[in-house]
Amino acid sequence: MSYLDTTALRDIARGSSVLAGGGGGDPFRGTLSAVEMTRQYGPPRLTTLWDLPDDAVVACPFIIGAPLAFLEKFPFGDELAVAARELQRVLGAPIAALLPAEIGGINSTLPLALGARMNIPVIDADTMGRAYPEMDMTLLNVEGIPAAPTVVADEHGNSVVVHATNNVWTETLARTVSVKFGAAAAGIGYSATVARLRHAVIEGSLSHVRSIGQAMREAAGDPQRVIGAVSRLTDAVELFRGKIISLDREIIDGFVRGTFLLEGIGADTGSQMTIDIQNEYLVARLGGEVVASAPDIITVMDAASGLPLTTESLRYGYRLVVLGIACDERWRTETGLAVGGPARLGYDFPYVPLEDSPRTIARRSAGAP
Amino acid sequence: MSYLDTTALRDIARGSSVLAGGGGGDPFRGTLSAVEMTRQYGPPRLTTLWDLPDDAVVACPFIIGAPLAFLEKFPFGDELAVAARELQRVLGAPIAALLPAEIGGINSTLPLALGARMNIPVIDADTMGRAYPEMDMTLLNVEGIPAAPTVVADEHGNSVVVHATNNVWTETLARTVSVKFGAAAAGIGYSATVARLRHAVIEGSLSHVRSIGQAMREAAGDPQRVIGAVSRLTDAVELFRGKIISLDREIIDGFVRGTFLLEGIGADTGSQMTIDIQNEYLVARLGGEVVASAPDIITVMDAASGLPLTTESLRYGYRLVVLGIACDERWRTETGLAVGGPARLGYDFPYVPLEDSPRTIARRSAGAP
Repeated sequence: MSYLDTTALRDIARGSSVLAGGGGGDPFRGTLSAVEMTRQYGPPRLTTLWDLPDDAVVACPFIIGAPLAFLEKFPFGDELAVAARELQRVLGAPIAALLPAEIGGINSTLPLALGARMNIPVIDADTMGRAYPEMDMTLLNVEGIPAAPTVVADEHGNSVVVHATNNVWTETLARTVSVKFGAAAAGIGYSATVARLRHAVIEGSLSHVRSIGQAMREAAGDPQRVIGAVSRLTDAVELFRGKIISLDREIIDGFVRGTFLLEGIGADTGSQMTIDIQNEYLVARLGGEVVASAPDIITVMDAASGLPLTTESLRYGYRLVVLGIACDERWRTETGLAVGGPARLGYDFPYVPLEDSPRTIARRSAGAP
Repeated sequence: MSYLDTTALRDIARGSSVLAGGGGGDPFRGTLSAVEMTRQYGPPRLTTLWDLPDDAVVACPFIIGAPLAFLEKFPFGDELAVAARELQRVLGAPIAALLPAEIGGINSTLPLALGARMNIPVIDADTMGRAYPEMDMTLLNVEGIPAAPTVVADEHGNSVVVHATNNVWTETLARTVSVKFGAAAAGIGYSATVARLRHAVIEGSLSHVRSIGQAMREAAGDPQRVIGAVSRLTDAVELFRGKIISLDREIIDGFVRGTFLLEGIGADTGSQMTIDIQNEYLVARLGGEVVASAPDIITVMDAASGLPLTTESLRYGYRLVVLGIACDERWRTETGLAVGGPARLGYDFPYVPLEDSPRTIARRSAGAP
């Protein structure tokens, strides 16, 4: 059990934005709540599943909705505590620890904010190793752990408890309620015992993104050094350098959806890359060919600052460095791909692991990171 | 406490369709569930609030959605029992009796079906004295009784518990979930103790519609006699006779919405009436002037059969007799109109009680019913 100071919270948010692949909301805003809760209630505690008894109940708090809407609604106030207390009532048991659902600027630090506020420890782990647009896209779903009961709450004290028969239905119902709540809402679900979760999560992921965030902080001001540090710590491959020459993005059904086009610069002059968005960057194509796709992580760094850009912060003319980062191996199994692979996201191309992509092989044989 | 046989169930459904003002779904289908449950579990019992202890808990079961969708989904199976059991869990108390939310072809007999199935008596009363498109439009809302917790369930075992801070929010959230459930769903809410409900409901309304339904049955085959019996028992005023010459109706956001135009026949030849629909008939205009509006009841009878037509069963060319029926006086108070008057339904004209409408005065002075 360790306590996290505000520097650690900011490092976690900053590092999370790398693995979030464009999703999870703005990391700066992500820390506001956690820092404020720390100021009011003391620092959050980090723990592991191995430090908790088998029968302790753990749950995953999250923000659901379109990241563009988080910008307006953030920082969240009481709604997350309302949702957590309602879940405790439904379960008839106290929540012994909080588990981050995903690695994302807001969704990684949100459990820390709630943990500080409710004096509940947070597990140094997450359920995706990245961010995903829909709440059924988690390794917990691969393991058959139900999302229901899931509670969704707004800032006015309204809440809804979803009891669905499968996790896609939980996602559908929670999403439709979040849209009514103003395109974003606080939620908590995927409650399970520690024993059930021990082999279902990605362990140590908060510590991992904290070390990434720390390296980024130490290199701040030197974009190339920041990108180099990130690449080293995540074993990333640089997929492309380019400038945004068109950007088509809107909020549909509670998601940020769209696509954008990059014109190559430097060594990539003369090539074009398109990237598809559904809250996260999902598919990168070079000259029409898929070179990286979910479940692998596509991260887009601002060439001017070296910092990752979320999908809602892209603007025409931005110069970007596109990185590919390999996902957790469990995503690459048949059941993993059914939950988080291209087909689940509406695509009909077969998944090729990032390391086997011709682009990656060409880049790495050329000595690029 | 009395038991209802299948003739009584059919009479209740038939009579309800008169006061439902075009809403509440097809009365024939409304009885299918109740008759089937009676066959399986024995007849439903009718009771009154005065026969129950003060602290007994009562709740209102209902179908929420667009009546057009009821046609596809009906008859409902287990979802209502799933919802009722979930509400009992949330309340931590058994439901001692069921209270019909509205008078409508399906929503009046649905509590009887559920009552037979779960062996729970049904109160001879309702909360509107008519049907209304939205679930906050009830005298219980006028009395400040919360709709939440409200449970909404589908036929696949999915359910959602809505804890909203006011009844308009409960309606919004329950409706949006019902749309995801395929445009119609089973629900139960407005739970309260008998003591709290005693002066909040319209008493004896099931017996009232039963007597209307019985008179209709006895006059069946003679449309003019059916309409005459209905008019006498409801003190209705005949507003218009005409033929549908245009009909614009669709399902939007979980409601049947639209308007239709009648060309006068008989004594009304040369005049035109338009009627607005939101699940129910809400406003009748003669030559552009409002002659009747909610909360008063506008009922549309098929001239060929004398039977009331629901909003989803209208067809081009139908010949209709339009009746106006006065609503319960509590709807005419300031708080009543705020919950169920023209302004709440999106209109900006002031409410004029049916009896004070120039059309009613002219008709009655001419000796018409």
